[in-house]
Amino acid sequence: MSDLSTHEKAAIQRINETIDAYFAENIQEAAHISRYYEQLWQDMHRLIKSGGKRLRPRMVLRAHKAFGGMESQQVVLIATSQELLHMSLLVHDDVIDRDYVRYGVDNIAGNYFKTNYRAVADEVDRLHYAQSAALLAGDLLISGSYRMMAESGADTKALSAVQAIHSKSIFDVAGGELIDTEAAFREMGDVDAHTVALYKTASYTFVGPLTIGATLAGASSQSIERLKQFAQDLGIAYQLRDDVIGIFGDESTIGKPTISDIREGKHTFMVEEFYEQASNVQKQRFEQYFGSKDVTHDEAEDIKQLLIESGALARTETAITQYAQKADDVLSQIDTGDMSELRELITIVTKRDK
Amino acid sequence: MSDLSTHEKAAIQRINETIDAYFAENIQEAAHISRYYEQLWQDMHRLIKSGGKRLRPRMVLRAHKAFGGMESQQVVLIATSQELLHMSLLVHDDVIDRDYVRYGVDNIAGNYFKTNYRAVADEVDRLHYAQSAALLAGDLLISGSYRMMAESGADTKALSAVQAIHSKSIFDVAGGELIDTEAAFREMGDVDAHTVALYKTASYTFVGPLTIGATLAGASSQSIERLKQFAQDLGIAYQLRDDVIGIFGDESTIGKPTISDIREGKHTFMVEEFYEQASNVQKQRFEQYFGSKDVTHDEAEDIKQLLIESGALARTETAITQYAQKADDVLSQIDTGDMSELRELITIVTKRDK
Repeated sequence: MSDLSTHEKAAIQRINETIDAYFAENIQEAAHISRYYEQLWQDMHRLIKSGGKRLRPRMVLRAHKAFGGMESQQVVLIATSQELLHMSLLVHDDVIDRDYVRYGVDNIAGNYFKTNYRAVADEVDRLHYAQSAALLAGDLLISGSYRMMAESGADTKALSAVQAIHSKSIFDVAGGELIDTEAAFREMGDVDAHTVALYKTASYTFVGPLTIGATLAGASSQSIERLKQFAQDLGIAYQLRDDVIGIFGDESTIGKPTISDIREGKHTFMVEEFYEQASNVQKQRFEQYFGSKDVTHDEAEDIKQLLIESGALARTETAITQYAQKADDVLSQIDTGDMSELRELITIVTKRDK
Repeated sequence: MSDLSTHEKAAIQRINETIDAYFAENIQEAAHISRYYEQLWQDMHRLIKSGGKRLRPRMVLRAHKAFGGMESQQVVLIATSQELLHMSLLVHDDVIDRDYVRYGVDNIAGNYFKTNYRAVADEVDRLHYAQSAALLAGDLLISGSYRMMAESGADTKALSAVQAIHSKSIFDVAGGELIDTEAAFREMGDVDAHTVALYKTASYTFVGPLTIGATLAGASSQSIERLKQFAQDLGIAYQLRDDVIGIFGDESTIGKPTISDIREGKHTFMVEEFYEQASNVQKQRFEQYFGSKDVTHDEAEDIKQLLIESGALARTETAITQYAQKADDVLSQIDTGDMSELRELITIVTKRDK
């Protein structure tokens, strides 16, 4: 998503201005309670400014435009609410994954551990308090996402409709997050990567934002149903690409160590393909390192080699192409509006390197 | 709150029916994603059914009635949303406090640790996963509280107004929770119990629910302003009573060990009063045990004795009486509606033993 049009850049700027105004207001209000509460809000603002693609708000705006909507402050606010949800999920996901870096910088828990709570002598306690601050930050951002919708000025029908979609996104993503987390200790057959991708990623990254945008533009229920199918296929392709980048990507481009997905032993579609294709010898080599917390750089290279040799990487690439094709097909069935900017997403999502 | 009128009992039943319907629907929907996700929803339902006062929804209904509102399904839904928020805060508060029992039963993390995740061999990991499940449960309940409002059928003006109050409650309670958590390691003077009580308790227990009820009944902004003052005073009195019960209460009545507040070294108004009044010798005895994780039953008795001897308990009781009086006074300034059921709350809140 590096080659942004002027139009896209302007959209991102409007979204960022909305974000900045939201945080400025909350920082000021928090200061009335305590300077420490102000600090938490400042830290949330710092973190949200460290990322910058604003993918989910842009999905809202693209879908809204595709179905003939005219952009307004109301639509930008509802679009931006999706970034607050995204940030809340990242913050809580990092607590669950015990990760302390996001966008190449300390996340909330990381910063609280290193800086704000450095006075706490006991490291276990300090970490727990740091995670507690992150927990509260995520709660505030979930609440903030609804609040931004409620304050957008949308009428009852639109507000109820978009909040219904929004709450469904959260319902789905929490389910996806739960089974993804449990995958670390459940039996392999109990969890499949397709279900996780659908609920944990496609739900709130594509299905929610795109159908919110279309709903605000007054799209028909048939169009929304097709758009939802498009969003699901696109979302799964997006997740598969993410899994590939997570292991084969360039660390300086993506801003986090690729070794972490290997250490975590992340149960992805590519790993499922590996287990279907690999020989017993390959599986033994794989299991020696995959999911081991102290895996070395060389061992990580061996894991990559195994994923290539077994054909797992190639099969994942094929799956990405197939989902992209399915997304394209269903989009062609939508016979109103101008789907060209939504069609562009297929390339953007599947060809990215970060 | 033991002597409930027939009217109150009927209100609680309507609230409970709304809760049950909400969980039944979500459990069914979760089952489509995964039986493990269904399990999480069942566990949330189990926990919410283990508590039963429904204090916050009843506050909404009381205020609504006081200002002449006619009860409807819409009002009951909005009232019940406050119980979902309450449950979400308890669930996340327990994660922060590393507590595993609530209402005398295992809470979400407690049940996941003991039962659902017993297959995880490493105890540290198992505890972390159990807390992660509780984190997701709390997120779902926050989202659910907004969703229930959005689905109530309230018109835009009412919906925006109640969601604005709701998001302010969450903003305040998160601030209160943060400074209360930080009180464990900040300097004594950096945090005061009054601020914590106002933001952590009064906010979402009284201010939010009562002003939501009054708003739905169309109360004037002047009345709502006074009601807010009433709610703040009542809420602080409630918290002070809670602190007293937390240390001097009967364990079998309150359903949790009174020793835990002592072990936690909870920074309450009563403790502040102790530090103002106690002699150095008393302070030394106090600090020997207070906040120590392995405090014995006898040592806890000594702490109680010190709080009595120093006058801290008596001064807390006086403060409760003063806040109750202030609440009564400001209620007398509201010149519309029938405030008798709100006035009753003062006695209910300050005279309770659990």
